[in-house]
Amino acid sequence: MNDPVMTMPKEQGSAAPVASEPSARAWRTEVLVRFSHCDPAGIVYFARYFDMLNGVVEDWFAEALGIDYHDMIGRRRTGLGFVSAGAEFATPGFMGDRLSCAVTVERIGRSSLTFHIHASRDGEAVLTARFVMVTTSLDIHRSIPLPDDLRAALERYWESCQ
Amino acid sequence: MNDPVMTMPKEQGSAAPVASEPSARAWRTEVLVRFSHCDPAGIVYFARYFDMLNGVVEDWFAEALGIDYHDMIGRRRTGLGFVSAGAEFATPGFMGDRLSCAVTVERIGRSSLTFHIHASRDGEAVLTARFVMVTTSLDIHRSIPLPDDLRAALERYWESCQ
Amino acid sequence: MNDPVMTMPKEQGSAAPVASEPSARAWRTEVLVRFSHCDPAGIVYFARYFDMLNGVVEDWFAEALGIDYHDMIGRRRTGLGFVSAGAEFATPGFMGDRLSCAVTVERIGRSSLTFHIHASRDGEAVLTARFVMVTTSLDIHRSIPLPDDLRAALERYWESCQ
Amino acid sequence: MNDPVMTMPKEQGSAAPVASEPSARAWRTEVLVRFSHCDPAGIVYFARYFDMLNGVVEDWFAEALGIDYHDMIGRRRTGLGFVSAGAEFATPGFMGDRLSCAVTVERIGRSSLTFHIHASRDGEAVLTARFVMVTTSLDIHRSIPLPDDLRAALERYWESCQ
Repeated sequence: MNDPVMTMPKEQGSAAPVASEPSARAWRTEVLVRFSHCDPAGIVYFARYFDMLNGVVEDWFAEALGIDYHDMIGRRRTGLGFVSAGAEFATPGFMGDRLSCAVTVERIGRSSLTFHIHASRDGEAVLTARFVMVTTSLDIHRSIPLPDDLRAALERYWESCQ
Repeated sequence: MNDPVMTMPKEQGSAAPVASEPSARAWRTEVLVRFSHCDPAGIVYFARYFDMLNGVVEDWFAEALGIDYHDMIGRRRTGLGFVSAGAEFATPGFMGDRLSCAVTVERIGRSSLTFHIHASRDGEAVLTARFVMVTTSLDIHRSIPLPDDLRAALERYWESCQ
Repeated sequence: MNDPVMTMPKEQGSAAPVASEPSARAWRTEVLVRFSHCDPAGIVYFARYFDMLNGVVEDWFAEALGIDYHDMIGRRRTGLGFVSAGAEFATPGFMGDRLSCAVTVERIGRSSLTFHIHASRDGEAVLTARFVMVTTSLDIHRSIPLPDDLRAALERYWESCQ
Repeated sequence: MNDPVMTMPKEQGSAAPVASEPSARAWRTEVLVRFSHCDPAGIVYFARYFDMLNGVVEDWFAEALGIDYHDMIGRRRTGLGFVSAGAEFATPGFMGDRLSCAVTVERIGRSSLTFHIHASRDGEAVLTARFVMVTTSLDIHRSIPLPDDLRAALERYWESCQ
């Protein structure tokens, strides 16, 4: 899963800290915290947050990038897995919360994409996550260059957020 | 969930990189990758990895620290949630894999604990995760100092790994 | 969790077979089959179906019954757990499917509710599930009568489907 | 997923009620109720029970039947999905519970298997589940006869429980 040759679109740099505010022009969606997301402590279980965020990624692909996530993995046999995933949890999420989730792109690589998801509730930060996604061939489980349509969509999205 | 006063046990420092090798004396357990952990790409779904790792933490508490994780959260009403959780995935995990998971402590704070889990398969690194756990009162959802028995157990564990 | 005294609203009887067609007037919602719902066989993992269906129940409470599911469990400390849950799977669900889910009430008891969820894709049945929910006190984990507002809402819903 | 021609091994019949006691000779395993299995009501979330039970099935295949569940689905491309799954929940399961799970076979069909899982805690029944598994080709998603080695193992298991 090496990703040796990286090309940086424009100037977005790699220094964007995880906790940075998302651009007001970033795509956003709302996610409802369900009963099953919560644990005996009465708050969202961290592993379910990651699952919830993968749903945000799917919807971001469909709605903001115009790329069919399920078709990419299914018919096109192109994996969209993560080589890195992490989150900082600022305050607990509770059952019934409606979290506003914004996606910002940090870096578009040759075969990888680094992006953040910022979740907030009533304007208060709940969590910030950072993911490094690598496109892979699901037949040989090795990295492949970002498909052209995905790269073009990411570059358009990145520009639209400036 | 601030944790303003930190005390470092001995010299373990905060510089331990996530990818460091676990001590040969670290507690280890084996985890089986099940059907339900895997996704349509045929490999472990990253959110299920985090869930699997929480089970490793529970067993580490019971077996290495001698602390009852479920009693801590249930009867003692002390939350063991994360303010930070992240992982680097080196190579995919497949159904039927038996992952050896070792836990190393990076830092014991006043009301927080930073630790790593290293998962490997046949000696090959599969993932390295880093967690910052904060002890909280589940009644008021605010951080509280590490309970004395947990702190003492962590210090013993830390020393036993040197 | 006994439920000794049952009252049957009108004539709906208890004989409604699980596979019956939902009324055209039943409340419906659409659920997207996500990547994480699917397993290495490429189809929806049955346990995730049950989780998905609990989300349908939450939305049915909010949208059709006008009852806040999360408030019921959280603030009102009234459990809405199942004493019976089962499903017949007619055909596999695939990533990207949009399932239309309809809820029909079979029986309103003293402290229990029996209902079905019918999921279909493009008019083709995908699954039919049957649940027996019991209202409980979350403080003593024993059944309690259906709260008045929930009972009234269920009776209104049942009538609206006739 | 029709299964038109069924052959019944010996006399086990199809009338075995779900709540029947498992044979003392049935294979058993112990499952720990983890933090992540539980919900804000503090008890096991029903959908996680189904996930937990699939793990029991995997271990039953490996330990009692001598069949590699993961190899069956992975390399042999034979699906082991359910056309029916249901459970009766007798009493709640709590974090830290150790559930004893026994598997009993109700019926071995041409391309299907009906079995029960009985979970108990300290001799008290917690749940009884009933599953109808159908063997399918994962390439065409249609039922296929039970593989010979699986059928032979099931018949041996069934006899050993008498």
